[in-house]
Amino acid sequence: MSPGKPLIAIDWGTTSLRGARLDASGQVQESRAFARGILSVPPGQFEAVFNALFGDWMQAANALCLISGMAGSRQGWQEAPYCPCPAGFAELGQHLLWLQPGRIALVPGLSCMGADALHTPDVMRGEEVQIFGALQLAGRDSATLVLPGTHSKWVQVQDGRVTQFQTFMTGEVFALMSQHSILSKTLDLNGAFDDTAFLQGIDQSQQPGSVLHHLFAVRTLGLFERLSAAALSSYLSGLLIGEELRTQTVSADAGPVILIGSDALTLRYTLALHHLNIACQSRGAEATWAGLFALACAC
Amino acid sequence: MSPGKPLIAIDWGTTSLRGARLDASGQVQESRAFARGILSVPPGQFEAVFNALFGDWMQAANALCLISGMAGSRQGWQEAPYCPCPAGFAELGQHLLWLQPGRIALVPGLSCMGADALHTPDVMRGEEVQIFGALQLAGRDSATLVLPGTHSKWVQVQDGRVTQFQTFMTGEVFALMSQHSILSKTLDLNGAFDDTAFLQGIDQSQQPGSVLHHLFAVRTLGLFERLSAAALSSYLSGLLIGEELRTQTVSADAGPVILIGSDALTLRYTLALHHLNIACQSRGAEATWAGLFALACAC
Repeated sequence: MSPGKPLIAIDWGTTSLRGARLDASGQVQESRAFARGILSVPPGQFEAVFNALFGDWMQAANALCLISGMAGSRQGWQEAPYCPCPAGFAELGQHLLWLQPGRIALVPGLSCMGADALHTPDVMRGEEVQIFGALQLAGRDSATLVLPGTHSKWVQVQDGRVTQFQTFMTGEVFALMSQHSILSKTLDLNGAFDDTAFLQGIDQSQQPGSVLHHLFAVRTLGLFERLSAAALSSYLSGLLIGEELRTQTVSADAGPVILIGSDALTLRYTLALHHLNIACQSRGAEATWAGLFALACAC
Repeated sequence: MSPGKPLIAIDWGTTSLRGARLDASGQVQESRAFARGILSVPPGQFEAVFNALFGDWMQAANALCLISGMAGSRQGWQEAPYCPCPAGFAELGQHLLWLQPGRIALVPGLSCMGADALHTPDVMRGEEVQIFGALQLAGRDSATLVLPGTHSKWVQVQDGRVTQFQTFMTGEVFALMSQHSILSKTLDLNGAFDDTAFLQGIDQSQQPGSVLHHLFAVRTLGLFERLSAAALSSYLSGLLIGEELRTQTVSADAGPVILIGSDALTLRYTLALHHLNIACQSRGAEATWAGLFALACAC
């Protein structure tokens, strides 16, 4: 597959902006990254920022630009409404929001509705491109994928379509508890990662009881000098990642879980999943470019 | 029972300082409250602050003063080591730390050890006095007690002794999530309490899945305009209080749960417990004075 033209692939998030220039076969020719997330762009200035940073790339004949991430949110360049699940490449392609027809488009995020009384919605924006890219790279069309982060996503894909997903506030709760709660007084965020303490946290999180109780142990294990301040940081991380994993059932038949994220985070999730006898494999930032390339081929 | 002398009962917490002068029959004659929690007192200045604020009361012949709360912590007047559970009045009385023999004593907190691999400790300081006071007022010597707050306590008392307890960081997590997380953008903390939304949160928290996922609904229910900003604040409160209740089993034979706390918090817990068919009764600040009086009688 080839879009038959050069692709300018852009990932425009809340706090960062990354772009890559791909040739017609999908090879990355050049990439750029800026601290120009959407929060730093005044309303009405998105086109000007885009032209200043990527205008030279857009001068290539027939260049096509696809932009994923929060640039398509209400606070971004323009709102590209969420595409409802189940959704695959075809649905994403149909829901592209063209800023310049045939030239520049915003990729929509995905939404799904819960089965609970309030039909609680869930949403993602930007991750959908990484998901489809990672599946392309892995040569699979069905999988469970995990995208750890501030708001971790657990995603089910069947026959090339996202059928369901759930967001967990794991990373944000870790940041708040470790920096702003009473626990910040007993732990040291700058210590080296301690895998033993991390797995003790994973084990504790699988015990009966609530994470709201388990969290308080980060204080008392410090008060009673059972774990060092550095170890407590890893223990807290294990408690929260373990709480996220506690409610997930992953069928061994479904093949290894695909992790997409930074090296530091995918290492922790890999340790945790192996500890719970769940096979996994990791993908990094390349998934974004592969996903946008595949979408360009399909649209 | 009577200590046979006037009691100066002091509750010296992290951010507040309260005192009451009781006659030999336990009646409160006068009470005072100051914004002079231990965090506001420089090391070495506790005796001077105490004398300035309560010195006149201590001039009564035979006056006995018992001080509970964080004044007995490492950061307080002097450290009164935790009294290990099971513990009742007798054990508390034996572990009093006398600052002036027969005149002024610090009441120790309680500790208990978990059955998990790390024997995770749990601790309280100040609540033990409220627990014994509330039991005296209720005329019971066995009960499940709940002390909602920044760090909620669930306490088991059998035959007049605390056998086990657990701390939940419910109040602190509510404060951090509602004021400092992404959820703060969709909810309104100043809105009126919405009992319908609160109970929707309670119901959601009892469903399968993790609270780390349920929390994200506070964002999406706002984005999709399913609940108002004011209702979302009550919904978040219901999610977290419900998560605390989810892991508790309360035997109907044990009699009603005793709630000790502020009116605003005991109202929410009463609603939640009734919704889950658990009977309860509430006690307020009077439990502290009753507890210190009973301790004075026993020591």
